Amino acid sequence: MWKVDLNCDMGEAFGVYTIAPDADIMPLISSANIACGWHAGDPHVMRRSVELALEHDVAIGAHPGYPDLLGFGRRNLSLTPAELKDYVTYQVGALAAFVKAAGGRLHHVKAHGAMYNQAAADPNLARAFAEAIAACDEDLIVVGLANSHLLSEAKKLGLSVASEVFADRGYLPNGALMPRHLPGAVLHDPDLVVSRVLTMVKEGTVQAKDGSIIQLRADTICVHGDTPEALAHLKALRQALAAAQIKITRVSGGDSRV
Amino acid sequence: MWKVDLNCDMGEAFGVYTIAPDADIMPLISSANIACGWHAGDPHVMRRSVELALEHDVAIGAHPGYPDLLGFGRRNLSLTPAELKDYVTYQVGALAAFVKAAGGRLHHVKAHGAMYNQAAADPNLARAFAEAIAACDEDLIVVGLANSHLLSEAKKLGLSVASEVFADRGYLPNGALMPRHLPGAVLHDPDLVVSRVLTMVKEGTVQAKDGSIIQLRADTICVHGDTPEALAHLKALRQALAAAQIKITRVSGGDSRV
Amino acid sequence: MWKVDLNCDMGEAFGVYTIAPDADIMPLISSANIACGWHAGDPHVMRRSVELALEHDVAIGAHPGYPDLLGFGRRNLSLTPAELKDYVTYQVGALAAFVKAAGGRLHHVKAHGAMYNQAAADPNLARAFAEAIAACDEDLIVVGLANSHLLSEAKKLGLSVASEVFADRGYLPNGALMPRHLPGAVLHDPDLVVSRVLTMVKEGTVQAKDGSIIQLRADTICVHGDTPEALAHLKALRQALAAAQIKITRVSGGDSRV
Amino acid sequence: MWKVDLNCDMGEAFGVYTIAPDADIMPLISSANIACGWHAGDPHVMRRSVELALEHDVAIGAHPGYPDLLGFGRRNLSLTPAELKDYVTYQVGALAAFVKAAGGRLHHVKAHGAMYNQAAADPNLARAFAEAIAACDEDLIVVGLANSHLLSEAKKLGLSVASEVFADRGYLPNGALMPRHLPGAVLHDPDLVVSRVLTMVKEGTVQAKDGSIIQLRADTICVHGDTPEALAHLKALRQALAAAQIKITRVSGGDSRV
Repeated sequence: MWKVDLNCDMGEAFGVYTIAPDADIMPLISSANIACGWHAGDPHVMRRSVELALEHDVAIGAHPGYPDLLGFGRRNLSLTPAELKDYVTYQVGALAAFVKAAGGRLHHVKAHGAMYNQAAADPNLARAFAEAIAACDEDLIVVGLANSHLLSEAKKLGLSVASEVFADRGYLPNGALMPRHLPGAVLHDPDLVVSRVLTMVKEGTVQAKDGSIIQLRADTICVHGDTPEALAHLKALRQALAAAQIKITRVSGGDSRV
Repeated sequence: MWKVDLNCDMGEAFGVYTIAPDADIMPLISSANIACGWHAGDPHVMRRSVELALEHDVAIGAHPGYPDLLGFGRRNLSLTPAELKDYVTYQVGALAAFVKAAGGRLHHVKAHGAMYNQAAADPNLARAFAEAIAACDEDLIVVGLANSHLLSEAKKLGLSVASEVFADRGYLPNGALMPRHLPGAVLHDPDLVVSRVLTMVKEGTVQAKDGSIIQLRADTICVHGDTPEALAHLKALRQALAAAQIKITRVSGGDSRV
Repeated sequence: MWKVDLNCDMGEAFGVYTIAPDADIMPLISSANIACGWHAGDPHVMRRSVELALEHDVAIGAHPGYPDLLGFGRRNLSLTPAELKDYVTYQVGALAAFVKAAGGRLHHVKAHGAMYNQAAADPNLARAFAEAIAACDEDLIVVGLANSHLLSEAKKLGLSVASEVFADRGYLPNGALMPRHLPGAVLHDPDLVVSRVLTMVKEGTVQAKDGSIIQLRADTICVHGDTPEALAHLKALRQALAAAQIKITRVSGGDSRV
Repeated sequence: MWKVDLNCDMGEAFGVYTIAPDADIMPLISSANIACGWHAGDPHVMRRSVELALEHDVAIGAHPGYPDLLGFGRRNLSLTPAELKDYVTYQVGALAAFVKAAGGRLHHVKAHGAMYNQAAADPNLARAFAEAIAACDEDLIVVGLANSHLLSEAKKLGLSVASEVFADRGYLPNGALMPRHLPGAVLHDPDLVVSRVLTMVKEGTVQAKDGSIIQLRADTICVHGDTPEALAHLKALRQALAAAQIKITRVSGGDSRV
């Protein structure tokens, strides 16, 4: 029996601003990565998002990002590993308080945007990120880009990891995500999204921009909630996964600690 | 045998900016209220401050404030109780993560500046503040202005409280602190500071601006770290308290839960 | 021949977040108050909003607010007059640079949210606000609540003023706007909005919440762009004003300097 | 007769935080680069710094930086040219308003920290920076690293430029400043500082880290105000420049427009 997790970034509203139909998305996913107030989100949004996730029995993850609300955390910032570690500790702690207050338990951590990409590519940042998680709670699962330094560094510290693939993003031949400003970086065709996901889950491969085949492990699939097609993609994916007898379920620590 | 806690706001540096000689002050106090990154402090300062407190066996408190770095959290802001509650949860959670990462345990929570004063004076804000603490960790001690709504609301929720007095601040007849822009609001004379403290601890009274006598309970004495006289006041206080056979020690939850 | 200005707060997007259909609204108004990056807006949004206004020959105003993006500048903050003056100077200067860069000329200044209300009600804040404008450019028109301290203080400094009325807001008997959390504070019925506006423009009166009649001068009518009914209200107003032979046109400095 | 400008970054305090003895430094320099509230500075500090500069007849420059108070604008951030242009326009406009309000005239613009270095090295960012200045006021002088792309792009737009050298910083062989984390990046010996400056002004050369000789033009010398040695360096420099018959005076637009 196949299984996979379906995750979405949630709680990226801020103050009077909204960005995605969180209430519609939450029932369709198994894991929510909730923004922690730095690249997006605010304390009220965090509380509400945590409650919404618990209501739908969705696994709650912290989704820390760079201190760059103006750039939505998508712009590279040259931090030292020590800075990154402190920023992650801060944000994970803040979200954990809302989870505890709501009677839940924090399940995983997934970095946002540029922090995600830089911690995937740089072993020193990856190590700092993993150290922050381990010191917060060693039962937290680290969600990171398939084949990335983040996953290998987290494993070295004995943390459980979840290897993430992207339903709606193009890949570079080296396994990194295509930068958003390039054509083909974000996929809009639901059929293409579905077929790529099935291949990733069942065969452990994806085709990169240049046609080459990347090997990857698909523990969890990311769908972006702030695209117009988010709901359509999620519904199409759920239907296709069901048809393919692939169960949608949160990642469990035991599975991925190897 | 008399006893009292000596607390100081710590960790109020930010980025390249410093403000108080924390390393010199920490050995002289029994409780540190560590800023949480909103009115002051940043993740690196928080980590370092927590480690410094643990090194000197000083009780660690979270010191949440308004989202107003520009005004150092000293300007009144009209929040709803729900907003206040969320802001406190966020900041307490963030600091708690650094405490946990350093192997310590968060001991108390004390609001900063305008948040402190507004939560002292307004029962609805007081209630919201106490609710936030109770949901984070019901063993946390709430430190608040003697005779304030904050202490009574926290007690109603079953929380331990510590009644705070100010060594270096003038009082209004109603028990509130004199606003900082008034003459006499901040005391600079070490002898005066010492004599007032001894009276507060041993007799449970302080003389207000207009000469009237206020009854108050002195579980913990606040000395401000960002005044030029901070170290002098602390040393004078420690000497005077020792001479008066008053032991300086952190507040314990059991003492103050009544 | 009657005439009146139709103004709307514009440029209140921030980063990835949008809030109102500015491109649809701009052709329907004669004056745009453009946010300056503190309560809302960012440099990119400011540039784009200025260009959009010039394209539609709409008078450009600076719309400074409190440093409170999280609260959209709607929460009271206790500033000193000197702080207010500095904050207004900063924001007006920032917007003026975009206007100059686009080949336009800044026309007026209107405060946002809590700054608007506090500068209307407090003569010292009103004076500080007006002083900031006068020092930036003495030809700028100060837009403020009808009958407010802001208008009288601005006139004392020799500035032109525009007396503003609100199409979609309820009034308190003293002429202040009803706080947004009260029922009836925001009007949703286009017919009611239109009839109130016609009375304000032609008869110089509006009925307050308690039924009493307030005398006011309607140089400019504010319609809020961030309500779902904004476009409907604007279209209904334009039609009704045309039918009543009331010309929609920007306020000119000469008219209102008296 | 030789001449050179002596410039210092000023107004980098923020809220309750101070960082450099601006009042002591201002009388010793001919140009002040005043922070604009993003990497440092706030509206009150800006007003006070502008007034202090005018009092001492010091040329006033805008000193824009990245939106990174936490990192003091010293961390690389990957902006698009359009973003950089908007951020510079905003900050220059904000400072210009304080200069105008104080009866002065903005004289030059110099970027801070990472913005300075990135706009020196990247022609696209350099062009965007220069375009922002040209659109604000074509009489503004662009101060930039000697031999940098910023100077050549600014000249292409017809702007006057000032070629800057650093009294207290080591150079890489390619003419860039040594990153601050490397040993030798910041010079502390006043004699060394003085001798390097004299060579730069009179011979147009400086020795790089590896011993190689860099050709550069020294229109203006930067001394950092936030180092403990700032005052000592400035006094030593002034004495040495006087002894060498080198006049200390602001850069004039006419000199450097070629």
